[in-house]
Amino acid sequence: MKSTMQDYQLTIASLMHHGTGVHPDSEVVTATAEGSRSISYAELGKRTAQLAGALRSLGVEGDDRVATFQWNNAEHLEAYLAIPSMGAVLHTLNIRLFPEQLIYVANHAQDKVVIVDDSLVGLLAAQLPHLETVTHVLVAGPDAAAADLDSLRSSGKEILLYEDVLADQSETFDWPEVDEDDAAAMCYTSGTTGNPKGVVYSHRSAYLHSMAACTGNVAGLTFTDRVLPIVPMFHANAWGLAYAAIMSGASLCMPDRWLQAEPLVRFINESRPTISGAVPTIWNDVLTHLDDHPEVRLDSLRRILCGGSAVPVSLMQALRERHDLDMVQAWGMTETSPVASVATVPLGVEGEEAWRYKGTAGRLLCGVEGRIVADDGSVLPRDGEAVGELEVKGPWVTAGYYASDDPEVEEKFDHGWLRTGDVGTLDHLGYITLTDRAKDVIKSGGEWISSVDLENSLMGHDAVLEAAVVGIPDEKWQERPLATIVVKQGATVTADELREYLATDFAKWQLPDAFAFIDEVPRTSVGKFDKKVLRQRFRQGDLRVEPLS
Amino acid sequence: MKSTMQDYQLTIASLMHHGTGVHPDSEVVTATAEGSRSISYAELGKRTAQLAGALRSLGVEGDDRVATFQWNNAEHLEAYLAIPSMGAVLHTLNIRLFPEQLIYVANHAQDKVVIVDDSLVGLLAAQLPHLETVTHVLVAGPDAAAADLDSLRSSGKEILLYEDVLADQSETFDWPEVDEDDAAAMCYTSGTTGNPKGVVYSHRSAYLHSMAACTGNVAGLTFTDRVLPIVPMFHANAWGLAYAAIMSGASLCMPDRWLQAEPLVRFINESRPTISGAVPTIWNDVLTHLDDHPEVRLDSLRRILCGGSAVPVSLMQALRERHDLDMVQAWGMTETSPVASVATVPLGVEGEEAWRYKGTAGRLLCGVEGRIVADDGSVLPRDGEAVGELEVKGPWVTAGYYASDDPEVEEKFDHGWLRTGDVGTLDHLGYITLTDRAKDVIKSGGEWISSVDLENSLMGHDAVLEAAVVGIPDEKWQERPLATIVVKQGATVTADELREYLATDFAKWQLPDAFAFIDEVPRTSVGKFDKKVLRQRFRQGDLRVEPLS
Repeated sequence: MKSTMQDYQLTIASLMHHGTGVHPDSEVVTATAEGSRSISYAELGKRTAQLAGALRSLGVEGDDRVATFQWNNAEHLEAYLAIPSMGAVLHTLNIRLFPEQLIYVANHAQDKVVIVDDSLVGLLAAQLPHLETVTHVLVAGPDAAAADLDSLRSSGKEILLYEDVLADQSETFDWPEVDEDDAAAMCYTSGTTGNPKGVVYSHRSAYLHSMAACTGNVAGLTFTDRVLPIVPMFHANAWGLAYAAIMSGASLCMPDRWLQAEPLVRFINESRPTISGAVPTIWNDVLTHLDDHPEVRLDSLRRILCGGSAVPVSLMQALRERHDLDMVQAWGMTETSPVASVATVPLGVEGEEAWRYKGTAGRLLCGVEGRIVADDGSVLPRDGEAVGELEVKGPWVTAGYYASDDPEVEEKFDHGWLRTGDVGTLDHLGYITLTDRAKDVIKSGGEWISSVDLENSLMGHDAVLEAAVVGIPDEKWQERPLATIVVKQGATVTADELREYLATDFAKWQLPDAFAFIDEVPRTSVGKFDKKVLRQRFRQGDLRVEPLS
Repeated sequence: MKSTMQDYQLTIASLMHHGTGVHPDSEVVTATAEGSRSISYAELGKRTAQLAGALRSLGVEGDDRVATFQWNNAEHLEAYLAIPSMGAVLHTLNIRLFPEQLIYVANHAQDKVVIVDDSLVGLLAAQLPHLETVTHVLVAGPDAAAADLDSLRSSGKEILLYEDVLADQSETFDWPEVDEDDAAAMCYTSGTTGNPKGVVYSHRSAYLHSMAACTGNVAGLTFTDRVLPIVPMFHANAWGLAYAAIMSGASLCMPDRWLQAEPLVRFINESRPTISGAVPTIWNDVLTHLDDHPEVRLDSLRRILCGGSAVPVSLMQALRERHDLDMVQAWGMTETSPVASVATVPLGVEGEEAWRYKGTAGRLLCGVEGRIVADDGSVLPRDGEAVGELEVKGPWVTAGYYASDDPEVEEKFDHGWLRTGDVGTLDHLGYITLTDRAKDVIKSGGEWISSVDLENSLMGHDAVLEAAVVGIPDEKWQERPLATIVVKQGATVTADELREYLATDFAKWQLPDAFAFIDEVPRTSVGKFDKKVLRQRFRQGDLRVEPLS
């Protein structure tokens, strides 16, 4: 029996037409040095058409890739909408990639045009000559004309001002019919070995992920919301917040490059977002700023999303108790679009038990199926106790990587499930608790020690700003935990004190045998703790390990 | 360029697995004569598997149709989940259909099995012998064994007790792979001419509609919600609330046959829903009940959805002002799954202007495109003023009817758009204002008079319970409005008083020339005003028209 339903394609264009057509009065506010600038969604719609016209005039056809090298701002949003809607593929370049990685991914994706922020011209210039397939660069932003365009021109590419090419174009565009399974956007993820690997999102996956983000169990976005994506649009699509805002008609507050606590807090108070999302580091900085400025209140925010790395419960508690802010942890990865689970609390649960749920990586969303798999490939019970690798599947989860010849790729999938590389448990309510990255697991005397649990606990200590725990080789136990600690400015603490502090929550054999005090935790290009570097530093004897008494 | 995303099918089974697997502690509460009965979602999952097993054992294969003849209760929900998930097609029979319509739709759909509530056995018995393709009837509900099964057995069909056949089955079922475009469910809509026509929903359309219902702009359902669908599950899928609740993990409160104000209010206070949906008639009754019982408060409800016919602003205002209840109007039809628009208020709008928005048929949801088309087929501006027929399209909008030979079907579609048969305007913010059904439009001297506007205004009068306005032939003006009025118990009002009351809001030429006081407004099988009957009564001289002075 055939359904009688319409064959309607779930595309970025349909999302864009809805957002700009039904919510013309919503706005995109972008932070500037002096304050902010803004355009309405009606204008956004027109400028999106102009951008599509401009790209077409530069020869962008079919599924050509157009790259962005931009902060979160109105122009980046225009690229998010125009490029997929015209049938091309949006490639968000991570501005924090190491030069050789940037060159690799741009060449691998065969980017044809790059849109770059005026403020990032300097960062792109050195690598631009090596981006072999790029023919044109559009320089965007209010100060584009004043940017050092010559540094780009020396690459031999054609360098154009974004506003100039838009001004020549019509405010309408003949948007092509696009199939929902066509590629819409791509994002590379940098593994620990081999080259970065590209995840290619379809129109359908982006649309469905946006719908999910608008549901009550994630952010419940409505057109009365104002969304502040602090997490970069070049990092896992700003967690889908940009498309979700357009879909719901919520206004967008874009921080551009003003990500330090002081300008960020000022921007929050000026643009009054109701929802925001960023990694723990950002919120840690905001917390410190708020603690130092008791007169400042962030009273527009009804929900703060946090993820990208494990969110310390102490951070959530401090924001709640001292600043009346509700932080909710979410989990996902580039391969999952990214949102897969959100740690809201079950009905009727309060107090310590509620904090326990808030400390998990979240509850599986409808659309994302999860399971825990043992080393031997067997599926483990969903009892909140059995520890194994988390595997997921769903309509916004990747099944592979773009044109990758990395032999490791095959190992990333298990009969249609994505192996996340995260290790933990899944309980009967669908809550994921992550204890480690598979590669960071500490195996001591046949037992696993969770570096994440130790880190979370350590970061709850008053004197600790950040903590990263790694396994170091041990003759007797195979591996033992080493805790690396960044102490808060002005605070002091000893290894013995920290060990004693941990002893109330952990068994003796789980406690770190060694502590090292460091200036900052090394991070990957997407801001995660880079434990590979820490282990390497330890091997090279570069970490000064404090003796325990 | 190919996307790397997984090919994951959006099916009722995946929705069911999520709801029952990740939200096992949520519950379905069903009203009973004495109070309520409930099962957890974990039990629901097991019983769904048992029902699928039972139906398979009775010979249900492939896309066989399984019909339900049930109120909103746990067993109906089990049918909603089991039948599509096993690959069969759920056919919800409207228990209020006229006998010949019921027989027509069951035979047209070729229903193989009917699940009937114990309380509805009597209603089905007389028609059962004429349901040619039906082989088995399952009698569900706590009093099934005590029902008059002999009245069913005389049909020659095999009559079984629902609980007996479930008890024989395993609590797990080998769910088949289903394509998201396969038929999941069907619902007939009774037009004004010709036979009822069947809309066939796909798994995909039901899934996407459920996601939309969970978004903030509709109901923003979360797993801490409790959903009370008063609108019947046999009427446009209870507005999608059942599937949406399962998807979000929200608990369900099912009123069964207790739809009168007194037991309904009692059930609301016992089961404490946060969201509910019903037609205006129901809420009118609830309002009267609440007015009469000032000690009763419905403080669990955070949002009441209302639709099915135009919602009088006076009803919304009375609920808000006298009972602190927030009612939101939604619009849709069987052909649109049904929710297409919801009348939430734009940011920053307050007072009279907010009530004006709440009085519209709502703002288009993302996924539903709308346009207003003139009689000559031209698309009219979205200016809130140009009046024409509303046309819609989207992934949960039908493109046709099941095996219909009705020559009128072709006229229902316009180059891929569904012609809704509703006449009105669309403004630049995507708000639909409906002035009439196309067939109910009153054309007077070349101008259109909105029967809906007159009705809404009349129903705001203290003495008026209901008002239905129809066009009657007029030699000079072609048509003129006749207002039929149901006066509230104990109240009195004259035609002159009503005309004077209307004169403050309407131009003189728009005022009804005639008023008729009637005992009740005739209704269709889905509870809408049946203006065809009113016009017929007028023609036959059956309406006593009050003279105006």
